[in-house]
Amino acid sequence: METLFATERTQTLIPRIQEFLEKELYPLETAKYLTGNFSQVEPILQEKRQLVQKAGLWGLHLPEADGGQNLTLCEFGQISEVLATTPFGHYAFNTQAPDIGNVELLHRYAPEPLRQKYLQPLMAGQIRSCFSMTEPEFAGSNPTRLGTTAVKEGDEYVINGHKWFTSSADGAAFAIVMAVTNPEAAPHRRASQILVPLDTPGVTLVRNIPIMGHAGDGWASHAELRYENVRVPQTHLIGTEGAGFLLAQERLGPGRIHHCMRFIGIAERSFDLMCRYAAQRELSEGTYLGDQQLIQGFIAESRAEIDAARLLVLRTARQIDEQGAAATRDAISTIKFFTANMMLRVLDRAIQTHGALGLTNDTVLAYWYAHERAARIYDGADEVHKAALARSILKGYGLDVRRTK
Amino acid sequence: METLFATERTQTLIPRIQEFLEKELYPLETAKYLTGNFSQVEPILQEKRQLVQKAGLWGLHLPEADGGQNLTLCEFGQISEVLATTPFGHYAFNTQAPDIGNVELLHRYAPEPLRQKYLQPLMAGQIRSCFSMTEPEFAGSNPTRLGTTAVKEGDEYVINGHKWFTSSADGAAFAIVMAVTNPEAAPHRRASQILVPLDTPGVTLVRNIPIMGHAGDGWASHAELRYENVRVPQTHLIGTEGAGFLLAQERLGPGRIHHCMRFIGIAERSFDLMCRYAAQRELSEGTYLGDQQLIQGFIAESRAEIDAARLLVLRTARQIDEQGAAATRDAISTIKFFTANMMLRVLDRAIQTHGALGLTNDTVLAYWYAHERAARIYDGADEVHKAALARSILKGYGLDVRRTK
Amino acid sequence: METLFATERTQTLIPRIQEFLEKELYPLETAKYLTGNFSQVEPILQEKRQLVQKAGLWGLHLPEADGGQNLTLCEFGQISEVLATTPFGHYAFNTQAPDIGNVELLHRYAPEPLRQKYLQPLMAGQIRSCFSMTEPEFAGSNPTRLGTTAVKEGDEYVINGHKWFTSSADGAAFAIVMAVTNPEAAPHRRASQILVPLDTPGVTLVRNIPIMGHAGDGWASHAELRYENVRVPQTHLIGTEGAGFLLAQERLGPGRIHHCMRFIGIAERSFDLMCRYAAQRELSEGTYLGDQQLIQGFIAESRAEIDAARLLVLRTARQIDEQGAAATRDAISTIKFFTANMMLRVLDRAIQTHGALGLTNDTVLAYWYAHERAARIYDGADEVHKAALARSILKGYGLDVRRTK
Amino acid sequence: METLFATERTQTLIPRIQEFLEKELYPLETAKYLTGNFSQVEPILQEKRQLVQKAGLWGLHLPEADGGQNLTLCEFGQISEVLATTPFGHYAFNTQAPDIGNVELLHRYAPEPLRQKYLQPLMAGQIRSCFSMTEPEFAGSNPTRLGTTAVKEGDEYVINGHKWFTSSADGAAFAIVMAVTNPEAAPHRRASQILVPLDTPGVTLVRNIPIMGHAGDGWASHAELRYENVRVPQTHLIGTEGAGFLLAQERLGPGRIHHCMRFIGIAERSFDLMCRYAAQRELSEGTYLGDQQLIQGFIAESRAEIDAARLLVLRTARQIDEQGAAATRDAISTIKFFTANMMLRVLDRAIQTHGALGLTNDTVLAYWYAHERAARIYDGADEVHKAALARSILKGYGLDVRRTK
Repeated sequence: METLFATERTQTLIPRIQEFLEKELYPLETAKYLTGNFSQVEPILQEKRQLVQKAGLWGLHLPEADGGQNLTLCEFGQISEVLATTPFGHYAFNTQAPDIGNVELLHRYAPEPLRQKYLQPLMAGQIRSCFSMTEPEFAGSNPTRLGTTAVKEGDEYVINGHKWFTSSADGAAFAIVMAVTNPEAAPHRRASQILVPLDTPGVTLVRNIPIMGHAGDGWASHAELRYENVRVPQTHLIGTEGAGFLLAQERLGPGRIHHCMRFIGIAERSFDLMCRYAAQRELSEGTYLGDQQLIQGFIAESRAEIDAARLLVLRTARQIDEQGAAATRDAISTIKFFTANMMLRVLDRAIQTHGALGLTNDTVLAYWYAHERAARIYDGADEVHKAALARSILKGYGLDVRRTK
Repeated sequence: METLFATERTQTLIPRIQEFLEKELYPLETAKYLTGNFSQVEPILQEKRQLVQKAGLWGLHLPEADGGQNLTLCEFGQISEVLATTPFGHYAFNTQAPDIGNVELLHRYAPEPLRQKYLQPLMAGQIRSCFSMTEPEFAGSNPTRLGTTAVKEGDEYVINGHKWFTSSADGAAFAIVMAVTNPEAAPHRRASQILVPLDTPGVTLVRNIPIMGHAGDGWASHAELRYENVRVPQTHLIGTEGAGFLLAQERLGPGRIHHCMRFIGIAERSFDLMCRYAAQRELSEGTYLGDQQLIQGFIAESRAEIDAARLLVLRTARQIDEQGAAATRDAISTIKFFTANMMLRVLDRAIQTHGALGLTNDTVLAYWYAHERAARIYDGADEVHKAALARSILKGYGLDVRRTK
Repeated sequence: METLFATERTQTLIPRIQEFLEKELYPLETAKYLTGNFSQVEPILQEKRQLVQKAGLWGLHLPEADGGQNLTLCEFGQISEVLATTPFGHYAFNTQAPDIGNVELLHRYAPEPLRQKYLQPLMAGQIRSCFSMTEPEFAGSNPTRLGTTAVKEGDEYVINGHKWFTSSADGAAFAIVMAVTNPEAAPHRRASQILVPLDTPGVTLVRNIPIMGHAGDGWASHAELRYENVRVPQTHLIGTEGAGFLLAQERLGPGRIHHCMRFIGIAERSFDLMCRYAAQRELSEGTYLGDQQLIQGFIAESRAEIDAARLLVLRTARQIDEQGAAATRDAISTIKFFTANMMLRVLDRAIQTHGALGLTNDTVLAYWYAHERAARIYDGADEVHKAALARSILKGYGLDVRRTK
Repeated sequence: METLFATERTQTLIPRIQEFLEKELYPLETAKYLTGNFSQVEPILQEKRQLVQKAGLWGLHLPEADGGQNLTLCEFGQISEVLATTPFGHYAFNTQAPDIGNVELLHRYAPEPLRQKYLQPLMAGQIRSCFSMTEPEFAGSNPTRLGTTAVKEGDEYVINGHKWFTSSADGAAFAIVMAVTNPEAAPHRRASQILVPLDTPGVTLVRNIPIMGHAGDGWASHAELRYENVRVPQTHLIGTEGAGFLLAQERLGPGRIHHCMRFIGIAERSFDLMCRYAAQRELSEGTYLGDQQLIQGFIAESRAEIDAARLLVLRTARQIDEQGAAATRDAISTIKFFTANMMLRVLDRAIQTHGALGLTNDTVLAYWYAHERAARIYDGADEVHKAALARSILKGYGLDVRRTK
């Protein structure tokens, strides 16, 4: 726990959550649940969710009015880190992406009827949702290029498009779909976000995309979807027409904090496993892995890198709390690539320290190795964030990098 | 193809093999075969093996007497690289580990009856085999610590022990088991290698170990095995009693070349996929991924690193050909960590270049990402090789690092 | 300025200091003063010191009673960063090492007569001092091995020994000498710190050691010294006999903060020069260095790394303020290697961005490149700190790394 | 010695040269000669040159007709490595840049009178020369941007321009000046190379540029020059008008080999010093630096990296020998950034291993640290070579990166 950002609430909540995780969730980290489909572990996690509710730890991301605790982003970030120390944490506490982002979105921008129909059961953990933006035909680094369209006919939108990496679509009740509604507007004002129930005719889940050897299922999957003449009422528009990117941008700030604190949780747990193993694995009579200086180097560098990244992210969270995401844009770019790379390095060292065991699903490390390489890609590849940050910095020095493009 | 080491034979064979791979094997690199169990693709590969035989490309690793071409290690290394550009190459050509190593071993050290019974069908691709050395209770960095014992009773050995990471045991006809036969001898003279048919009573395949999310099966699996009062005739001894480590050492030289050239094949194919994608993926109207300087950096560094590693490995192979493995020990340590790390870097850059696509099994990259992290661990972890190499170098400067241990 | 740690005092002081530096000191960063000996620039800096006093910015590190402002370590750290943005900053403000450390030491542990004779003029900038600990014959990683002895005769100590890297000895009024006074005590209780006026007979400045091409002189030099039968009164003992290491340890906490914040100041200024140059250097008609993505990568990574390091150091400073150095030991090890390496990377990127110009003394970068490589060595080499940190962490996991040594 | 490329000549010459260096030149590596100006050591090196001549080792880079041995580039590269193991090697053997390049140039393209007047004494070591190309106003990454002009008047060229980093101009007899003679031609056909005696009126050596703290002098300096209405006969044209870049390009191939093999020599010597020190430096009773695994890591990684780089460079040299520089262009780009970075890493590790001693001029390491950072900049910065290599590779994949620029 980073005392610099600790509050009364985090100091109360975190030990309780940590205790819960160790008792209820860490024991699920077996090869059985780390290799199979999510549907295998989901029933158990549903039971755990009830325990979370009983323990009064449900809805930590929600405003008080919705049964939450009005945590600041900086406070929730610290909790998010702890929840991320096991792959099952966020789901058990109903704070998992992409639902947490959709909850925020619907809270702010959904018209009342949608809120009742979708937001309430989402907060209650009764349904799941997804966010359908990325398209295989267009590079994610340029989000204004979209092929999906939503055309008004009568009081409906008719949506056509092809999406992929719509995470958790399998089994979700609805998607928030990014589609071009105003093709003649300026590039950043063309798209809108529209809520599409996934049982609407014309929606096809083509496949759960096999990733690192697994298609997965349910919440733990990434779908390819086709929308063919999908009709939804115009009242399903979230926010205003043409505001799609604006809302997506707004989502990014807190979303980035969630991701980065999750990375830090993974790194911290990997670090713990690395140290634990180093201290116990005997190499020869009386000599332990931890006696090896190269392993000590892994440990020391990891400690420094995790702590530095955490400070950077929590400082950014606090700045968003105080000044809003727009004023924090550079820091939001910075933490993404810095923290994702840190996490992957620490995880890699933890695996290397474990030797052959680190490759197996007898620890949680291999699960993360396969699933978290994505951290340097989704939500903006390293290269995109670095270029964006540098452009912003250079603007302060009088160079407009974008001028010729 | 590295012209420096090209011979008439490699210049004839490599283009033919490359053509075969592109026509028969690259098309198998689909999500279907890259995510499922090996048993799914095996029947198809059996057909491909017949095509290999028809094409006169079978047994490239074998002496002429056995239908091979008497290739030098340096020549076979170059072929091994090409075969490794697809996960199915070596298997289709029957040059896959661990069988290729067992063929070499039996050739040199097996008594005649074992050669007829096991070596012939192995060379013909009719059976498979495994090498059972690593034990979960003891660190691989110190191979002289072994818990498995083989005790003489009558004209048999009675074997008891616990092994894991016995690759390809599932479905194999026999294992070469490393077991302590001479517990009173000096540490390096205690163990022997014994051929154990896997249908011998007392042999239990506990499980195929789940690795990076997959237990796998058949050739593509890594088993945990128990040997409980397993009885085999003493004539199943390979080489002489107490020579276990000596034979294992001998295996390492050529084995290291096989591994390293395989890494280079993976790196080279990843490089090709990276360049291909960079040249074709449009970021915005008329701007391609390959126009990005950060991607150009990936490409340039990868080109340099692959070429340098290949030269280092082939030079080492030639030295083994000319002077034997013992005289090449330092180079054999060097190439392992240098090449494995290079391969993982290049692969990582290729994935990053592909973005989300790189995480999917729609290309071969994600398969390698999950399976090849092992390269820095098996057959000696980076740290073990680095320390061994440094010790050997420092000995030349008068410091005996081992003296106090 | 990092707002997280800003106080009213830092917010008032830092802009004033920054303005002073830009007006009075940055203009001195010319090849003339960056390549010659310190004696060339010293007279000018003496004038600047008077301007500092006039501006009321003198003695920022001192307690109020001595004309300072009672800044916390965390506050002074932030000021130290700003002062370090030019090689002349700390000297002009009389906050330069090693004097700042000696001021702290004498404040706490010197008997009254020494305080009047040495501490007062030191705080006034009338004399300079040095700290004489490192010996060429013994590795710095093991400070308890010392060859220098101080033997009591009558009411004097007779000191004999050979020291090097006694920074700033040339022209200093006195040295604090670390010498063995209690050879029979436990290793960490053998040495004492004794104040030795450098004009005492028997003290020989053998040479200013040539470093990276320069022997330097005056404050900017590192001396080799011999102490041969050097006699000083026993009243020159600082603290108690045998407390030498304890005092040295105590010095390390704040000293580490000073060093690390200095590294951050150097990094921040290098970053500024890099961005400035990237924004202005034309590569071809209308294309600037900053348009190059590889340069953008340098900028983005540097921004992230500097900010992360600063947070880590200031958090550590605050912890020392609140809990003392002993309770902060691990963090104090961590920041040293993390920050020194960060600074050298950022500096290296800044030089690379400047191309040939970056090698010249036409900017301040080359000065730092030559002088600051030392950062990874003095005050504990990277390897020493990493091993120390890992040992401390592993102790928490039940492994006592030191047990066998 | 890399046996793969060894020839009878290299096997004969290298041990003799190595012996010479150890006896005559390594002893000059003292603080005195490593920190002062070149003029201090030059008289001694002149004596050593006579010893080289006596030993029959003079002119190793020359054709047989000129007293050389007709070494191939690959053979001379191996010798160049050995000579580079001390900062004084190449000069003592008269194979130093930039003279070696000018010798090659004049050999091929100088009209007979210039050959007699300048080439002969250059080969005899009686005069020195320089190559005047880089200009402070234009980025080196785009060599076609030149401000220096040579205008024909009568039978003379009148040259005006401003150059810097004209290495070794101080004391040189002549410069080869790159100047625009055909401003209307295509960018790559505008410049010519013209021989300008440095005592021609209008030539001003503005300064030896201070680099990393030293302006240096004589051969070991880098000058800023002004050419103001400098008149030389048109017969001083080297090659043909407008062929300036073509000749510069041609020079690059062999020049790159010289540089890279020099880097390898520096790395190899640094490695030797690192191992030597690690084996001898005692940390505590009976424990040596070389017992530390982090130091072992330095040693192992350095060994691998040096060997790999050497193979890459020598393979490239052989390819130039066999196919010419044009056909080897990609490899020539590759070796520059790969080898320069390798050398700086190895050197850095050697310094770190030496601790404080590594910073001093008591070893040769600090000299190289200050002087060789330039390796990643001159003759094409890393970024330029990487982008060039990637462009060339991507062209093979159908992407013309330059198309839009």
